[in-house]
Amino acid sequence: MAEIGHGGKEIKERIFDPSKAREKIKGLTEIPVRKQIANEIIDLAYGFFSPLEGFMGKADVDGVVKNMRLADGTIWPIPILFDLSEKEVADYGVESGKSVVLTYQGNPMALFEVDEVFEYDKAAMCKAVFGTDEEKHPGCKRTYEYKDKFIGGKITLVKEPKINEPFGPYFLPPLKMRQIIKEKGWSRTVAHQTRNVPHTGHEWLMKGAFFQAYADLPIEKPEVGVVVNAIIGEKRVKDYIDEAIVLCQDELEKAGYFGPHNHLTSLTFWDMRYAGPKEAIFHAILRTNLGITHHMYGRDHAGVGDYYGAYEAHHLLESVGEELDITPVYSMNWLYCPVCAEITSEGLCNHGDQQQKFSGTLIRSIVTDGVKPPRLIIRPEVFDQIMACADKYGQGSPFVTEEYLEKRSPVFDIEPL
Amino acid sequence: MAEIGHGGKEIKERIFDPSKAREKIKGLTEIPVRKQIANEIIDLAYGFFSPLEGFMGKADVDGVVKNMRLADGTIWPIPILFDLSEKEVADYGVESGKSVVLTYQGNPMALFEVDEVFEYDKAAMCKAVFGTDEEKHPGCKRTYEYKDKFIGGKITLVKEPKINEPFGPYFLPPLKMRQIIKEKGWSRTVAHQTRNVPHTGHEWLMKGAFFQAYADLPIEKPEVGVVVNAIIGEKRVKDYIDEAIVLCQDELEKAGYFGPHNHLTSLTFWDMRYAGPKEAIFHAILRTNLGITHHMYGRDHAGVGDYYGAYEAHHLLESVGEELDITPVYSMNWLYCPVCAEITSEGLCNHGDQQQKFSGTLIRSIVTDGVKPPRLIIRPEVFDQIMACADKYGQGSPFVTEEYLEKRSPVFDIEPL
Repeated sequence: MAEIGHGGKEIKERIFDPSKAREKIKGLTEIPVRKQIANEIIDLAYGFFSPLEGFMGKADVDGVVKNMRLADGTIWPIPILFDLSEKEVADYGVESGKSVVLTYQGNPMALFEVDEVFEYDKAAMCKAVFGTDEEKHPGCKRTYEYKDKFIGGKITLVKEPKINEPFGPYFLPPLKMRQIIKEKGWSRTVAHQTRNVPHTGHEWLMKGAFFQAYADLPIEKPEVGVVVNAIIGEKRVKDYIDEAIVLCQDELEKAGYFGPHNHLTSLTFWDMRYAGPKEAIFHAILRTNLGITHHMYGRDHAGVGDYYGAYEAHHLLESVGEELDITPVYSMNWLYCPVCAEITSEGLCNHGDQQQKFSGTLIRSIVTDGVKPPRLIIRPEVFDQIMACADKYGQGSPFVTEEYLEKRSPVFDIEPL
Repeated sequence: MAEIGHGGKEIKERIFDPSKAREKIKGLTEIPVRKQIANEIIDLAYGFFSPLEGFMGKADVDGVVKNMRLADGTIWPIPILFDLSEKEVADYGVESGKSVVLTYQGNPMALFEVDEVFEYDKAAMCKAVFGTDEEKHPGCKRTYEYKDKFIGGKITLVKEPKINEPFGPYFLPPLKMRQIIKEKGWSRTVAHQTRNVPHTGHEWLMKGAFFQAYADLPIEKPEVGVVVNAIIGEKRVKDYIDEAIVLCQDELEKAGYFGPHNHLTSLTFWDMRYAGPKEAIFHAILRTNLGITHHMYGRDHAGVGDYYGAYEAHHLLESVGEELDITPVYSMNWLYCPVCAEITSEGLCNHGDQQQKFSGTLIRSIVTDGVKPPRLIIRPEVFDQIMACADKYGQGSPFVTEEYLEKRSPVFDIEPL
């Protein structure tokens, strides 16, 4: 049976049969790509970005910028771009109708059927997507760093990536994820977007969403799964290291705070754009393609600085509501309340003056001290996992350092054909 | 603006202007009523039972028994009956078209415009409402105890009841409740049916329902209220005393586990029928009339023994879904999990073998011992309130005793006109 993704289109993996891959790229010009583009090639080929089949042409970019829609009317909030400089276009002889092969780590990764070479006003793109054209916005910065020519065309993988330890079990592309959801028997699933190691506030965000997702299901045993979908992409110093993020999210399940009956950890390769409301729509599309029915949205979803109102994403989601195939569930912040002696949600109990926020700084200092925090702040098993990840993957630190960026193993490799 | 209740009908209070009451009943035959009937007169007069305006006639009873509907097609699950013996009918001269005055505590309470005197097969009634005609089912027992003639006709209060301390603030009939909900600014409300003093499992049932009720609301601050609606009626030995039920539910708010911003305690006079699924529908109607938008349904709602499947009420509610103006929210049991070190819901965490149920026996033994339990089992303020109620209202016990039944003050009085 066809698996239908965003925009009502069938999700198809665009991956050549290994026996035919060599032949498909024989004699083609090779163009090496950087990490961001390699991530997005994977997303395109496995259907994370369905109905997109490749990098956007001008009509789609124009639609996204002007109407938050592809040229065919499908909602789409963020341009997916392949860029080259004018010199590169000339040197590689890139032109419409001519296929090239994209390489990563020196090896062939994907066939790129070039449709179109075009230019687009980057400031206009920024204003549309990020609501600002200020270079200090990290999404704008990334946009301005694109080279001046954009190339549209379909992508097909010639070689599946080898996902390295410990990420392998968490790489669950749309068709695979949909199969697992069927096997689990979940009639509802709720996506948790994260780039964090979970403290109990995050745990309860998910637990709250679990109830929200099954509110109207008259069921004897809620067949609801929380799907943690970690965004794995560009890292900055002081972020949690990727290994700690996925292993600690999974640890919540392994240690029984959830169970395999209602929890699954997965990842998507993507460099955050911090587009706030637009990225919220983008997340809805990603998780629709993953076969997920509900999506959690908290305060300031995927925002940065004070560019977006705390609940601006909620309002944008509501404005396009019926056109998305995923149901948003909205949540407040969760806090620790010493009077309730438990985790509570903003606005739930009335001990506001005594509630303690989970500040990033507090959690960071707890983790940095290496002293086991109370189990109502960070679960002891999660804490142990953080420390194990620091030793094994982070040169002693669970946070990204210059040394980690230099020495870390790649999340995936493209091996020789 | 008209307040619309169950069945799309306007809710109207049926209460005479005090200056005219005396005149309305002048010269009419007086018939004393028992407590159950006095409760239901209040419910009818204030619109708790809207669209009913009085005790049911034969066509309505027949509709309820055969189709779970009034004669006009409105969903209704439990007959509301006024009974007399054949001898009483003769002695009082009760007949169609002749009004009588119903008295309680020796004082005039309501005008009863007799429409119809009829008989009905009680066993058929039992089978339809309770799914059994066994006399040991408490609802059947109550049905068989009705005398043999039923009298249908409209009811109008001639004297509002005086609600006694400490119940006064919690008597919030439909029009009053709807006004309070407007003043609170709640766009969603979720009803909690109770006859219990709350432990933390009950507290989290309500907290879970709070999230469920606002799942799809994109709001900056959830304007959701939990409306506790305690059923106050016939008491049995070992029940919690009524005073403890309402004061302890309210204590959860006073002590800040909720707040006036999201919580309200109220009561309805009603002798439980233990009709399980049918009583669940009845509760939906009651709370619709109270202006509440959502209703919590847990395991074995309003059931007794093993007459009903644990989730049979859910299924019946779903089968009539669109015809009710209240949205059910379904919940599992809540438990204490020592590994999570918090209250959790059945099926939420995976520490099933270590979870501790809130057994009635456990809670009873804690309360009987009078030793303050952990705050994660019973809130200390609630515990203190239980003990205060035991002293003040329960002759030293928070549980109903023969002595309490004999000595307690009435919940309401009908004073002389």
